[in-house]
Amino acid sequence: MRNIAIIGYGVVGSGTVELFEKNREEITRKIGRDCDIKYICDLRDFPGDKYEDRLIKDFNIILNDDEIEVVAEVVGGATFAYDYTKKLLERGKSVVTSNKELVATHGAELFRIAKEHECNYLFEASVGGGIPIIRPLNKCLAGNSILQISGILNGTTNFILTKMIREQMDFDSALKMAQELGYAEADPTADVEGHDACRKICILGSLAYGKHIYPEQVHCSGISRITLDDVEYAENAGYSIKLIGTVKPAGKGKVSAIVCPRLVSRSSLLSSVDDVYNAITVTGDGVGDVMFYGKGAGKLPTASAVVGDIIDCLKHRDRRIMIDWEDCTDKSYVVPYKQIENSMYVRIRANDAEQLKPVIEELFGKVVYLERSDRPDSELAFFTPVMVEADIDSSLTKLSEKAEIASKIRLL
Amino acid sequence: MRNIAIIGYGVVGSGTVELFEKNREEITRKIGRDCDIKYICDLRDFPGDKYEDRLIKDFNIILNDDEIEVVAEVVGGATFAYDYTKKLLERGKSVVTSNKELVATHGAELFRIAKEHECNYLFEASVGGGIPIIRPLNKCLAGNSILQISGILNGTTNFILTKMIREQMDFDSALKMAQELGYAEADPTADVEGHDACRKICILGSLAYGKHIYPEQVHCSGISRITLDDVEYAENAGYSIKLIGTVKPAGKGKVSAIVCPRLVSRSSLLSSVDDVYNAITVTGDGVGDVMFYGKGAGKLPTASAVVGDIIDCLKHRDRRIMIDWEDCTDKSYVVPYKQIENSMYVRIRANDAEQLKPVIEELFGKVVYLERSDRPDSELAFFTPVMVEADIDSSLTKLSEKAEIASKIRLL
Repeated sequence: MRNIAIIGYGVVGSGTVELFEKNREEITRKIGRDCDIKYICDLRDFPGDKYEDRLIKDFNIILNDDEIEVVAEVVGGATFAYDYTKKLLERGKSVVTSNKELVATHGAELFRIAKEHECNYLFEASVGGGIPIIRPLNKCLAGNSILQISGILNGTTNFILTKMIREQMDFDSALKMAQELGYAEADPTADVEGHDACRKICILGSLAYGKHIYPEQVHCSGISRITLDDVEYAENAGYSIKLIGTVKPAGKGKVSAIVCPRLVSRSSLLSSVDDVYNAITVTGDGVGDVMFYGKGAGKLPTASAVVGDIIDCLKHRDRRIMIDWEDCTDKSYVVPYKQIENSMYVRIRANDAEQLKPVIEELFGKVVYLERSDRPDSELAFFTPVMVEADIDSSLTKLSEKAEIASKIRLL
Repeated sequence: MRNIAIIGYGVVGSGTVELFEKNREEITRKIGRDCDIKYICDLRDFPGDKYEDRLIKDFNIILNDDEIEVVAEVVGGATFAYDYTKKLLERGKSVVTSNKELVATHGAELFRIAKEHECNYLFEASVGGGIPIIRPLNKCLAGNSILQISGILNGTTNFILTKMIREQMDFDSALKMAQELGYAEADPTADVEGHDACRKICILGSLAYGKHIYPEQVHCSGISRITLDDVEYAENAGYSIKLIGTVKPAGKGKVSAIVCPRLVSRSSLLSSVDDVYNAITVTGDGVGDVMFYGKGAGKLPTASAVVGDIIDCLKHRDRRIMIDWEDCTDKSYVVPYKQIENSMYVRIRANDAEQLKPVIEELFGKVVYLERSDRPDSELAFFTPVMVEADIDSSLTKLSEKAEIASKIRLL
């Protein structure tokens, strides 16, 4: 039975074919019946490719072939992939995907179509690459109220921050190195500014709380303004700087979600997650903290999740796998991040900054001052108490009359 | 619909009821229909208990009630629980369990009965308490050949080792503290000698490789002989001592499995897993290393996994959830541990131990010597190269003619 098709023969697509073929015997045993990849659809030519006989350019061949039960969409983007996925699901073909942009943008609609046509839309590969997180959250932790999800969801930024922390490389040099090693794109905006992590936290939050969180509702700031001075103050105080996506309930059936750099205490295992690795911590009212760790991207790790989803679809033919969430039209479902409480690391510059301590304490109450080697007199860094962010900002506005606000970074 | 029954109203049973009742509204939404706990079966009396009206002593009431779809068996042991579970599955009632002893001893048989009667036998709570590991291994990682599973699978021993490492407490004092805190039983044998971890690695290995691994086939050594001297040598060399369960393929369709203390390099995240926490690392040929971390025991963490399984059963009524393995009658399926390769930490005592270095190097080849503060002249510690364990042992036998072999601990 040649019942599988792959759309997109790039990094993840070729990894999916490679892993499937490598472990095919075992996979067939798990599924309990014959299965094989019939088509690989890509507009490009791959002359001499090992699977050239399966390569096609016309998507409609897949759509119209009754033998095809499950399609792996690993094209990416929310244009062609969106169109293809809808058409496939409407024909009752299950789709599995690594496409975080599509799931974060149109997930609720695609789940509805899958449900109507009694097929599956699975997306384990869309968050954390090969790290199992979607099923564990949906099934294993289903008995919990989820109190918070926090994660290092982007390997590129984690690599850059690790280089800054471990080797005192500045941001631009670390980015350049990441590009040279193939971890960062030529245009690194989506990674560095947190948009990629944002899509992933939207997916996790939508699944945990049952309603679609859209990326445009989530405040997102990246790591390009982090300096080595900030890294040093953080290290001295026992913290690492990590780009963290967070989602949690905000009361009254609403949620808060944000992606931003954060100071993570060294007592948290998240602070030890280095290089291109990702990790996601889920806090449940029953289970406490559980953490999932591994390679968050890359050819074979992502393929691992795609192939896992293919197997699940074929193993449960004609049976719905219930992993989904509802659409949400309530524009106020995600509360503005300025209403959320945080403790904030602040670094200021002023002539004789020490003199401003009474002003700082008047504005913020009891703060914790930080040190670094050779701290100039013109610099001061401190942690605010836990405060509503709007209040922190209004105090910082007042402080900015007397000092330059050089950095502010939230604590986890 | 009052379709759930709990057998055993001890720590896990009462946690299961508590967590279910707490999150009942959300759970009902997830299942998509009404559900409730109808019976709690325990031989003991609980006068004044909040759920006294549901308490029963006669198991047959559950067995004969057609309304009951799923039963949580949280009694433990392999006697009554075995009998009850078989009877329930034969009636087509799904059973979920935290009972590692039963799954490790009779899993294959119970899966077969469940299959024959088209119901489910789920056991997420049997390994790692609330940590999602069974489903991730069975589903998310299904596309991989599993190259190795290594885990800190017992919280009690990890607590004791953490106290020895961090506070230089000796084994007996650390055990006493664990008992006082309720982490260790009055008779701590099952934890301390590794039998509990052994059951868990049997379950993980059976699931990963598809054939039942029985606890009596697995070599198992505990932590009671670890000394503070060993801890100090290990720490100096950049290692922590952890009780680790390991299972991996051993070629020709066979597996190796062992539970023993090991020196874990500080570069491995497992070495940072402290106190009563558990963590499991799975290495797949696609995904690389992924790690699962959290509280491996306790009332609500374990209940989290039990309730997750209950939800999965009720959500997929009349549908089989395929998580199982086959029985294995091949007595040679688990290869003898003496045939497996390891690097070994060895500590010896002799008059003027330094003088034995040429003898050691003749026996083992190139070894790495270790240091600790105030190492006496009568002591020497070293790492052997990676060698088949039987060869290490025969060299140690020769060495023992000239020195006392005070400790030997495998490296991970």
